[in-house]
Amino acid sequence: MTANPAFSSERVKRAAAWFETLRDRLVVAFEAMEDDAPDDLYPGPPGRFVLTPWSRQEGGGGVMGLLRGRLFEKCGLHISQVHGIFTPEMAASMPGGTDDPRFVATGVSLIAHMNNPRVPAVHMNTRYLATSKGWFGGGADLTPLLDNQRSETAPDALAFHAALKRACDAHGAAWYAQFKAECDRYFYLPHRDEPRGVGGIFYDRHDSGDWEHDFAFTKAVGGAVLEVWPRIARARMIEPWTAAEREEQLIRRGRYVEFNLLYDRGTMFGLKTGGNIESILSSMPPTVKWP
Amino acid sequence: MTANPAFSSERVKRAAAWFETLRDRLVVAFEAMEDDAPDDLYPGPPGRFVLTPWSRQEGGGGVMGLLRGRLFEKCGLHISQVHGIFTPEMAASMPGGTDDPRFVATGVSLIAHMNNPRVPAVHMNTRYLATSKGWFGGGADLTPLLDNQRSETAPDALAFHAALKRACDAHGAAWYAQFKAECDRYFYLPHRDEPRGVGGIFYDRHDSGDWEHDFAFTKAVGGAVLEVWPRIARARMIEPWTAAEREEQLIRRGRYVEFNLLYDRGTMFGLKTGGNIESILSSMPPTVKWP
Repeated sequence: MTANPAFSSERVKRAAAWFETLRDRLVVAFEAMEDDAPDDLYPGPPGRFVLTPWSRQEGGGGVMGLLRGRLFEKCGLHISQVHGIFTPEMAASMPGGTDDPRFVATGVSLIAHMNNPRVPAVHMNTRYLATSKGWFGGGADLTPLLDNQRSETAPDALAFHAALKRACDAHGAAWYAQFKAECDRYFYLPHRDEPRGVGGIFYDRHDSGDWEHDFAFTKAVGGAVLEVWPRIARARMIEPWTAAEREEQLIRRGRYVEFNLLYDRGTMFGLKTGGNIESILSSMPPTVKWP
Repeated sequence: MTANPAFSSERVKRAAAWFETLRDRLVVAFEAMEDDAPDDLYPGPPGRFVLTPWSRQEGGGGVMGLLRGRLFEKCGLHISQVHGIFTPEMAASMPGGTDDPRFVATGVSLIAHMNNPRVPAVHMNTRYLATSKGWFGGGADLTPLLDNQRSETAPDALAFHAALKRACDAHGAAWYAQFKAECDRYFYLPHRDEPRGVGGIFYDRHDSGDWEHDFAFTKAVGGAVLEVWPRIARARMIEPWTAAEREEQLIRRGRYVEFNLLYDRGTMFGLKTGGNIESILSSMPPTVKWP
């Protein structure tokens, strides 16, 4: 097994180390935003991440990170590195799973729900999975809460997409168009015939044949989010908001809940297979209305 | 088709007429509670139901009822009578569906979410479905929001179960035990290993061979809820509550959302087959927290 490069502990270690580095950089960036958020709009002390390690009996573990602050109403930022043996059903659905049911998975995930309804929510998740094959997956997408920001031509959406396009274009000419389309397909609520947000990129089972290249791409995606979202959020966080906008935000968050519980493969898979509930459901918005 | 007694318009009409009568009686009972709720706990004018008729292209329709009041934070109370043709997949899963894919369905559904966290939420749904066969289904269950009420031996739970047991016992000696067990099985959140509330009864595809008897039973279930829940709620509505209890209620409501979107067959079926979203999601609690 260790002779197989996909499963090699070196690749897994390098991917896991990057996800931890990205987590650390996001912690620094977000806590600085907590510090810099104007006191008149955000009374009280700046929030700090609480990092809680966990382990699972089958092997591996992670660190759950939660920031409940004054600008960040609730932000989940988690890393994990787990290994185990797929059930025959899972193995059959995974590349290389039928050769050997052992797997290792490592990743980082981020979801930020903000107190200010004018600051869009952001979601990012990148991961490396290895069986007898190895591949990257993940993506990032933006969810503005107010109707007047919920268009792909709104300024925040344009900035977010431009950053992801740069990350894609540097690694594969066709990737942005392809991964943007995947994102639009995935983050969509059929029962309301509406997108969850203004999109981003989404990719899975990504193996171009050049591991170093794919790893560099996944690093670029994380780097893009680290650069662009704080820029968007800092520009918005100084804007005061109205009670009507807060109400619109709380109602719009209901769609986020509907998506996560009705359609999100990760959430449903995690909940139905005995995953860590607190970590899985940390993606849920902190306050929601269905009036 | 009309020669078949299950599908006979007389049975459908009588069932639909009862569901409408029950709806009318619940409207009267709940609006009286809005009037009688003490002003010091519930400022503002008493709420009134808004009834909105709807129809569907395939045939039939209903009336969506919503009460947003001072005691009732959000109460959905709907009746419907629809007919159509099952898809082959649906027909194969329905009694009598393979003989003839036509169906008619009529029912009443109630879900009440209260402002006062000490007043338990209630859910009731009874229906009559006919293909070449005909059957009743439905049930009622109670969801106290505060931990100290969430036991089957708590006073409200005892009163609720006693009323349903009387309705069952008058029609079938074994029915209460059987339908209570069905309810416990159904209103359960596997991912949290916890029940949604304190149970009640749940029955489906109920056809004892004596239509009049089964119809009388379904009427008794509705009558039991009409009698017992307002009695429970009136005793509780005069109790002041604390901010901590309100917080507990909002968090507990998150479990209700999780159940409805992850497990409730009616909700998932409705949303995924193009049902009336507003009516289906009127069961969602008005304000919810995942802190």
